[in-house]
Amino acid sequence: MTSTEIPDIVVGRLPIYLRALSRLSLEGVKITSSKELGERLGISSAQIRKDLSHFGEFGKQGTGYKIDFLIEQLRRILKVDRDWEVALVGVGDLGRALAHYNGFRDRGFHISLIFDNDPSKIGTTLNGFQIYDSAQASEMIQQHGIRLAMVAVPAEAAQSVTEALVKAGVTGILNYAPINLSVPEGVHVQYIDPVVHLQRMTFYV
Amino acid sequence: MTSTEIPDIVVGRLPIYLRALSRLSLEGVKITSSKELGERLGISSAQIRKDLSHFGEFGKQGTGYKIDFLIEQLRRILKVDRDWEVALVGVGDLGRALAHYNGFRDRGFHISLIFDNDPSKIGTTLNGFQIYDSAQASEMIQQHGIRLAMVAVPAEAAQSVTEALVKAGVTGILNYAPINLSVPEGVHVQYIDPVVHLQRMTFYV
Repeated sequence: MTSTEIPDIVVGRLPIYLRALSRLSLEGVKITSSKELGERLGISSAQIRKDLSHFGEFGKQGTGYKIDFLIEQLRRILKVDRDWEVALVGVGDLGRALAHYNGFRDRGFHISLIFDNDPSKIGTTLNGFQIYDSAQASEMIQQHGIRLAMVAVPAEAAQSVTEALVKAGVTGILNYAPINLSVPEGVHVQYIDPVVHLQRMTFYV
Repeated sequence: MTSTEIPDIVVGRLPIYLRALSRLSLEGVKITSSKELGERLGISSAQIRKDLSHFGEFGKQGTGYKIDFLIEQLRRILKVDRDWEVALVGVGDLGRALAHYNGFRDRGFHISLIFDNDPSKIGTTLNGFQIYDSAQASEMIQQHGIRLAMVAVPAEAAQSVTEALVKAGVTGILNYAPINLSVPEGVHVQYIDPVVHLQRMTFYV
């Protein structure tokens, strides 16, 4: 089954399943069920079974899922059974926090090229990596064959940075700038904006 | 119409509309259409009209939306026409970046109580606010009547921190720890985990 046939909302739940399964595995659990997983995640067991059925058979009715096996399969499906290099553009407080975050490497990602346009930052190192001039981003990302990038620049700069990334061959962008990006077909953007999440909750509070 | 009658997915799009409208307003635009807004956001104009129709009539067919009026209405609907105090638990790199982030205050949020359990951090200040001992979080949050919190602690600590927050009366939690939280009914959790977003994109790359 090709990626275009799987609903995007299903793809979006797979990393959540993978995270919960990895947690269970860390806790020493070997077998789980769609019911147990669903209770942990607040998702119905039927939904989990249906989502996984897009990709094959991962457990037998009544015996549950072997956690390590399902982790391995999900990692293969999501293509995180390998390491991905990621470019980071923007070394403000957030970019700095992202560069130091240990959670990426454990889960398949590795920030290996860092850019900023502030002359006082260019040439210094961050978490062992040199900070390069954003003006070099297109060329260097292309040279390194990097396909994923995080954008942590101010809103005003995000669209032009994105255009440079796309030109360099980046097809997956994690955008922290509080602005919607315009990208050509085939380029995926995911957004992280804490205010959007907070505003969604104040509606209910 | 009460909040329980509006699909959560619709509520989730309102902050995105608000953000795009605020951007247009900043650019000096006065009037927009569901078509223009939809093109900016990659959402169909019919979807936007349908979402907004849950809350009333915000524009006339053919004349478009008055941006400042629609912003005001969305702010009222989302209850961000007032300021919200937010507690932050966890002052690692990420917590520090969150405390320094200017984008909260402009959009209705104000990190005003900060906690950590590291004795070397307790009593120091961050962005002008004193860092208090996490052990005091329940009591202090209750005293201040704070309903929103951000959790930026390691995965291992997130569930127990959450329980203390819920006990203190917090009903909206923005969780940065890479773990699913278990909360009683009536408490809303939103998750930010960059790896989940990256893994969702590697599926397609």
